[in-house]
Amino acid sequence: MHDIVLIGAGRIGAVHAAHIARHPGLRLAVVADIDPAAAQALASRHGAQAMAPDAALAVPGLAGAVIASPTALHAPQTLAAAARGLAVLCEKPLALDLAVAQQALAGLEAQGARVLMGFNRRHDPDFAALRAALAAGRIGALETLHIISHDPAPPSPAYVATSGGLFRDMVIHDFDMARWLLEEEPVAVLAATACLVDPAIGAAGDVDTAKTILRTASGRLAVISSSRRSGYGYDQRIEAFGASGALRVGNVAQNRVEHWGAQGASEAPFLDFFLDRYAAAFAAQIDHFAQVIAGAPPLVTAADGLRALRLAQAAQESAQTGAFVSV
Amino acid sequence: MHDIVLIGAGRIGAVHAAHIARHPGLRLAVVADIDPAAAQALASRHGAQAMAPDAALAVPGLAGAVIASPTALHAPQTLAAAARGLAVLCEKPLALDLAVAQQALAGLEAQGARVLMGFNRRHDPDFAALRAALAAGRIGALETLHIISHDPAPPSPAYVATSGGLFRDMVIHDFDMARWLLEEEPVAVLAATACLVDPAIGAAGDVDTAKTILRTASGRLAVISSSRRSGYGYDQRIEAFGASGALRVGNVAQNRVEHWGAQGASEAPFLDFFLDRYAAAFAAQIDHFAQVIAGAPPLVTAADGLRALRLAQAAQESAQTGAFVSV
Amino acid sequence: MHDIVLIGAGRIGAVHAAHIARHPGLRLAVVADIDPAAAQALASRHGAQAMAPDAALAVPGLAGAVIASPTALHAPQTLAAAARGLAVLCEKPLALDLAVAQQALAGLEAQGARVLMGFNRRHDPDFAALRAALAAGRIGALETLHIISHDPAPPSPAYVATSGGLFRDMVIHDFDMARWLLEEEPVAVLAATACLVDPAIGAAGDVDTAKTILRTASGRLAVISSSRRSGYGYDQRIEAFGASGALRVGNVAQNRVEHWGAQGASEAPFLDFFLDRYAAAFAAQIDHFAQVIAGAPPLVTAADGLRALRLAQAAQESAQTGAFVSV
Amino acid sequence: MHDIVLIGAGRIGAVHAAHIARHPGLRLAVVADIDPAAAQALASRHGAQAMAPDAALAVPGLAGAVIASPTALHAPQTLAAAARGLAVLCEKPLALDLAVAQQALAGLEAQGARVLMGFNRRHDPDFAALRAALAAGRIGALETLHIISHDPAPPSPAYVATSGGLFRDMVIHDFDMARWLLEEEPVAVLAATACLVDPAIGAAGDVDTAKTILRTASGRLAVISSSRRSGYGYDQRIEAFGASGALRVGNVAQNRVEHWGAQGASEAPFLDFFLDRYAAAFAAQIDHFAQVIAGAPPLVTAADGLRALRLAQAAQESAQTGAFVSV
Repeated sequence: MHDIVLIGAGRIGAVHAAHIARHPGLRLAVVADIDPAAAQALASRHGAQAMAPDAALAVPGLAGAVIASPTALHAPQTLAAAARGLAVLCEKPLALDLAVAQQALAGLEAQGARVLMGFNRRHDPDFAALRAALAAGRIGALETLHIISHDPAPPSPAYVATSGGLFRDMVIHDFDMARWLLEEEPVAVLAATACLVDPAIGAAGDVDTAKTILRTASGRLAVISSSRRSGYGYDQRIEAFGASGALRVGNVAQNRVEHWGAQGASEAPFLDFFLDRYAAAFAAQIDHFAQVIAGAPPLVTAADGLRALRLAQAAQESAQTGAFVSV
Repeated sequence: MHDIVLIGAGRIGAVHAAHIARHPGLRLAVVADIDPAAAQALASRHGAQAMAPDAALAVPGLAGAVIASPTALHAPQTLAAAARGLAVLCEKPLALDLAVAQQALAGLEAQGARVLMGFNRRHDPDFAALRAALAAGRIGALETLHIISHDPAPPSPAYVATSGGLFRDMVIHDFDMARWLLEEEPVAVLAATACLVDPAIGAAGDVDTAKTILRTASGRLAVISSSRRSGYGYDQRIEAFGASGALRVGNVAQNRVEHWGAQGASEAPFLDFFLDRYAAAFAAQIDHFAQVIAGAPPLVTAADGLRALRLAQAAQESAQTGAFVSV
Repeated sequence: MHDIVLIGAGRIGAVHAAHIARHPGLRLAVVADIDPAAAQALASRHGAQAMAPDAALAVPGLAGAVIASPTALHAPQTLAAAARGLAVLCEKPLALDLAVAQQALAGLEAQGARVLMGFNRRHDPDFAALRAALAAGRIGALETLHIISHDPAPPSPAYVATSGGLFRDMVIHDFDMARWLLEEEPVAVLAATACLVDPAIGAAGDVDTAKTILRTASGRLAVISSSRRSGYGYDQRIEAFGASGALRVGNVAQNRVEHWGAQGASEAPFLDFFLDRYAAAFAAQIDHFAQVIAGAPPLVTAADGLRALRLAQAAQESAQTGAFVSV
Repeated sequence: MHDIVLIGAGRIGAVHAAHIARHPGLRLAVVADIDPAAAQALASRHGAQAMAPDAALAVPGLAGAVIASPTALHAPQTLAAAARGLAVLCEKPLALDLAVAQQALAGLEAQGARVLMGFNRRHDPDFAALRAALAAGRIGALETLHIISHDPAPPSPAYVATSGGLFRDMVIHDFDMARWLLEEEPVAVLAATACLVDPAIGAAGDVDTAKTILRTASGRLAVISSSRRSGYGYDQRIEAFGASGALRVGNVAQNRVEHWGAQGASEAPFLDFFLDRYAAAFAAQIDHFAQVIAGAPPLVTAADGLRALRLAQAAQESAQTGAFVSV
């Protein structure tokens, strides 16, 4: 039974807390938040101790830390936790600024830190099964990849303003998926963007729609379709095209009841919230974190986080120039 | 190029006429109908001669006759055409009355007549592919069969009154499909019926809903679900369960456009008219009839028609007794 | 936090134990089994006390009992637990013998017992959504119902010999589903059976294949298709036909990866184990049991269990006579 | 009944001949080909006259010409037919060279020619239904479009060498579809290409894989995925994303039989030949051509052909520069 400290008692922190509490090999020992009331509320729901973030890491007997605080704190808290020898599950991104992230990564590597980056989608059972099928050669050599990742509804302009922009906030997940599935580093990025969903997003200096192409050294191509709003729920699909076939993962409906009527056949709406769509992934992520604490290599490292961030930055640059940007 | 006489210029006659006219090996020479105007209208659409039914069969040079007249004329006209040496495509049923049908069959067999019964569904490409897959052993030995056959909307009570009843009018198609796919004769029939769709059908002495079970000597079971009204188009499905798997044919949508919206995913309504759903089957039926004229054995014989009628009669009896009826 | 005693540390007991242990409002206090080692193993996995069944119910402070012992013990243990004022979750069936079940029910009703019968499928989210859609009038008045319930692979002949037979052991679940969805009591039952899967099942005096028809007073018809072996996983489907449309719940694949290759499009095999297919149902069942303990009326009562058993007995009789049996 | 001359008795010419012969309002009067034997063979199959291309257009009484000759002859023969006042169905492209095409278009417009360009996909019932749904506002304002167009298997290197290259030979169809569905002209094109399928295609100076992005003035984005080989049949899909939902058209299987077995659920392979996949489109194209002869405006004009060619040329240029090319 490993003791865990959770820093950050917000929405995603609450999800991690529940999975830790339910895990047979983990114990949620401490919940920390800059808001003491929030820490207390979440801690008492799971029989944990509430405490300020600084003090939390000093609690004796901890084996792991989960960093679910605001983005700007990800890097310093991960470094601080690693410095105490804890395995760390750090929410993405490591930092919004590439230089900050690079410095943090250097620090973590110098410490030999064990960091699992919170790219939850790698833990999704369906995407994992897709990757396993690729690895098993079910479609021969992979050639191209399509990732569709459209959010149900746009965030508030206020969120957009501090989000780091579409690529660093949202597409970064897809950059990670693309790298993971391509099994080759992208060497060039092109992004075409538009503001079609909400003019307020454009006014906040961001875009809400993008089609991004990644190219690897061997010529593999990945296309990522991004939108801040689908109108039909959370659209999270992947298609992989190989030398002898294709593999696909589609969307998930809220239930499996099909209706046949005069207007045709219809199915329940897709899940429209990332916590529902990726519920199994978040549970599996904590499972994997327990294994990382026990010595397993992390499925996603801080270096992976940095590479995804680099792709996001290159995409943003390409959106300005209209040309491929090398990475 | 074989000359064909068509007797019956109604709805189904018009369908046959168009397929004959389009067939490279057939020529629609004569169209006959007791209504001279109807015969003339259909004949002139295809450059054929119009004529009264009696005279029509005497036209020299004919190779085949298509009998699409009212049910009571099926047997005598088929016999008359066969007596002249013509191959005959006879719409189902041979007769509504079992004794009449038996006598007609005896006459046809005595003449060595070549008769293709108009059970169009055997010519449907999907059901034919299902049967081919069964024959290829894709699910091992067939064990049970489910046939769902629900009409889009109920017929008028007037039609019902002269239809011969649900089993002889509608389920007879499914009895033929069941016999064809089971590849064993049913030895017992049970039918549970109800009048749930339209009380006027009950008032006309018929039922509109039925679940029928057929049992073969080796124990295979087929279930036929029948309804005069689906509310969602023409429901024509088959599932076959075997020792190592199952085979299914589903419904056909009006187009393949899928819509995703806030209410969920939806597809176009199913085809809701038998002439649309079985358009390919009717074309293939005429193709096959051309082969029968050229000497091929008919895929569905008059004897098949008689056996289906016998099952219909047994089902009707079982609906009264609530017990299995032997055939 | 309510203390629960679990009687029966076998396969299904272990499932209940895990869900109770994970439930925020329940505590697995005691695990009992006639095999002390089995009780001890399961109890220590969840920090519970192990004990013999007789002693277990006497532990002070208990709020509920889960009876997952061999069938013959269901009735006496449920009665004993209820006599102590505990809410009881009793695995189906209450008894294999109708008279025994009737007597137990009388006893329970005399005590005002709160008993939740373990018909897990009513708790399945998809079937529950189907029922909700029926209740919401999405297809108008329900007319007929098709339930397909085929097991992945046949049980051993030894199991069959003591199972109570196909209807009491397996179809009883579907009788309960049919009653629940029809919202009318069946008044007549017909069953056609065969032994097509495994001759050893026939030798053990049972059948392995059945098509059963239920008829309600208003004429609604339900068809249940049963097989001890599908060859393609656990086939658990329902179709409901109403005055203006149909509702369907299909099978569940092991994952949602689709493969496209030269042989066509294919999906992962269906879940092939009832504990996987109904994992969410078993969790929801414990949730509901917690509510029953807190005073909610049980979704499935002991009276429901008796009625399903009565239908099973009638079906078995009908399989002998070949005629509808009134209930 | 309008008399038609067909120039070109090759594969696609034979398809047109059959549809013309079957059309109630058209008569295949003349078949011409530079190979007299080919012309004779096709002509006699349909009771038409065979003749050399030059003489063919001079036959009196013609109403329309179908140009299905080698690409280099499309422009001169279309001009010659139009000069005689015939309506023309011209196979795509008008020319491989943009200047030649522009000159031809100028000539045709000067004559007021009625030319239907042979972009068959616009006549596909499913794509037409997709466009109708867009026009009906089913997903609100269109924002982005995904077209997937992967051939079953690569052509021979010899074909590739004279094809005009991937964009002019194959993607040109998708450029036309994109323009048709976007209902706005693309103003910039970007193409990322690779040679992943067959090195011989690269050796012939072409590519076999491409992801192309089109951008319109208002910011709409279309992505076209192109491959010379799928390994799983003819992949022809479209997804349209709008302000309130999405519309999709998927692939077409060879039949609708579904198989369930131990390996999972599988469906028949997709149609793997464009003449099968677009059989209905080719028939509808001839229907529409009959209407053009009768005075209807062509659904696809020679100007449309030129614009698609311009996009192809821009895409090819972009593939070299790695940047968006304005059109």
